Amino acid sequence: MICIRDRVRFVETDTMGVVHHSKYLHWFEMGRAALLRAAGLSLNDLMDAGILFPIAEVDVKYKNSCKYDDEYEVQTTCTAITRIKLEFEQKVIRLRDGAVAAEGKVRNVFTDKDGKPTRIDVVWLERMKQITEVDNTKE
Amino acid sequence: MICIRDRVRFVETDTMGVVHHSKYLHWFEMGRAALLRAAGLSLNDLMDAGILFPIAEVDVKYKNSCKYDDEYEVQTTCTAITRIKLEFEQKVIRLRDGAVAAEGKVRNVFTDKDGKPTRIDVVWLERMKQITEVDNTKE
Amino acid sequence: MICIRDRVRFVETDTMGVVHHSKYLHWFEMGRAALLRAAGLSLNDLMDAGILFPIAEVDVKYKNSCKYDDEYEVQTTCTAITRIKLEFEQKVIRLRDGAVAAEGKVRNVFTDKDGKPTRIDVVWLERMKQITEVDNTKE
Amino acid sequence: MICIRDRVRFVETDTMGVVHHSKYLHWFEMGRAALLRAAGLSLNDLMDAGILFPIAEVDVKYKNSCKYDDEYEVQTTCTAITRIKLEFEQKVIRLRDGAVAAEGKVRNVFTDKDGKPTRIDVVWLERMKQITEVDNTKE
Repeated sequence: MICIRDRVRFVETDTMGVVHHSKYLHWFEMGRAALLRAAGLSLNDLMDAGILFPIAEVDVKYKNSCKYDDEYEVQTTCTAITRIKLEFEQKVIRLRDGAVAAEGKVRNVFTDKDGKPTRIDVVWLERMKQITEVDNTKE
Repeated sequence: MICIRDRVRFVETDTMGVVHHSKYLHWFEMGRAALLRAAGLSLNDLMDAGILFPIAEVDVKYKNSCKYDDEYEVQTTCTAITRIKLEFEQKVIRLRDGAVAAEGKVRNVFTDKDGKPTRIDVVWLERMKQITEVDNTKE
Repeated sequence: MICIRDRVRFVETDTMGVVHHSKYLHWFEMGRAALLRAAGLSLNDLMDAGILFPIAEVDVKYKNSCKYDDEYEVQTTCTAITRIKLEFEQKVIRLRDGAVAAEGKVRNVFTDKDGKPTRIDVVWLERMKQITEVDNTKE
Repeated sequence: MICIRDRVRFVETDTMGVVHHSKYLHWFEMGRAALLRAAGLSLNDLMDAGILFPIAEVDVKYKNSCKYDDEYEVQTTCTAITRIKLEFEQKVIRLRDGAVAAEGKVRNVFTDKDGKPTRIDVVWLERMKQITEVDNTKE
C-alpha cells in the first residue's frame, strides 16, 4: 500500500461547497501513479513502450465530503495484476477527522496504441508485480 | 429517458489521446441535469430550497474511448426515486459508430445544507417523480 | 466571427457559486475550434500533419460572473494569422442579460512535435486564412 | 514571495502531450492560497466574513511546456494590495531544467456576496498586508 497526502484545491470544489465527485478519480489516479513510481515505474515508460492501460471500470462510494483546503490522504493497494489487467482498491481519508471520504475499486486493462486489448510481456509483468510489494506506511 | 448530444472538448483529452475517464462523470451530470430541466426542475431550485443531493455512488464501465472532436450522446434514465435517494442508469454513445463508450449507475442521496442525510418533502418528491415521465427520444 | 452557445455545467462552478475563472479558457478554446471547423479544418488534421499550435499568451478580463445553468455565447474573431502565429479576440456573453462575462486575447504559435517554433507551409497558411472569412452571425 | 512545489497530474495533460494551458491558472491559484495561508489567512475565513475576491484579470505568457510527471515550482509575489484589489506576479518553473514554463499577472478585486465591488475593512487590509512580508525562499 502507498499513502500520499495533498490538500483540496479551490478549483476542485463546486457550488455545493464541497469537492466535486469527479475529482476523487484524479486523486485515485495520483495514488496509482505514486504506487508505480515507488516501484521504479513511470506511466511515461509504459507509454514509451507502447503500453496503454485505460480504465475499464471504476466503482466509487462517497461517504463524507471534503471541502476547500482540507488535507486528505489517498491509500492505494494493488489487489490484482495479470498480463491483461491491473486492479486497485483505493481510499481517500479526510485528515481533519480521519473520516473516509471515498473508497473505490479501479480496474485498468492493457491495450496497444490503437486501444486493442493486449497481453503485456512477462518482463513487464515481473517489473509491475513489484507494485504489490510497495509499502510506505511503516516509514 | 433523455438524450443529449455534445462534442468532445480538447481540454477533456489526455496524453493517451483519448477522453480522460473522469470526464464521463461530467457528461453523466449534464444528462441528469437535462432530465431535471425537462421536468421543469433546476438544481438551483433544489439548492435554494435547502436540498442538496450529493453523489453517493458511481459505477462506470468504460467500453470504447472517445477522442477529441467526437460527437457523443448521453442517455439518462431515472431508475428509482424515493424521499431519500435518486438512482440513474446512464450511457454514453460515440456517434461516429454507435459504439457504447461508457455505461454507468449513479446514486444520489438527499442531504441538508450540512451534508446530513434527509428525507425530502412529499411535495418535492411528487415534483421530482416527473423525471421518470420524461422521454425525448420520440421527438 | 463565429458565435457558439452553450450552458454552464455544474462541474464548472466553484465554492464561490460562480464559474471558475479557468473555465473561460475552455470556452475560448471551443470557440477557436469552432472557427477552424467552420473553415473545414480540424485540430486533428493539423496534429496529423505534425503541426502543433500551443498557446503562447492569454489575457483575459473578467467582467461579470456566470452561474450554474447560465446560457452563454462565445464570440471568436481571428485578428491575425501568419506562418508563425494565430491571434484571436474572444468574448463570452451571458445570455440572460447580454452582459459581457469575459473578454480576452489569445495568441497561438506553431511548433513542431518537439515544441520547437516553426513556420507552417504556405499551403496550410492559405487554408487557415479561410478562418478570417467565417461569419455565422448573419445566419 | 512564496514558493510551492508539486508534480504534473496525468489529468492535467492533453492530446498534445503537454499540460493544458488552463491548468497553470490552477497552479497560480494554489500559489496565491499558499501565500495567504503563510500569512495566517484562509480563503475560508474571507468567505466566512462575506468577502469574495474574484479574478478580474489574468495575463499569462507560456514559455515552455510541462509534461506528465514533471515537477514544478510556483513562485508567487503580491505586488499590490489596497482596500479594493490584490495584484500578484506569478511564475511556474519546470524543475528538471529550471526553465520558466509560464509567467503571469493576476488581479483580484474584492466584492460582496452578490458580486458587487466593495472596499474591505481596514482591519482586514492590515491582516492581508502581511502577505507582502512572506518569504519562504530563505528557509
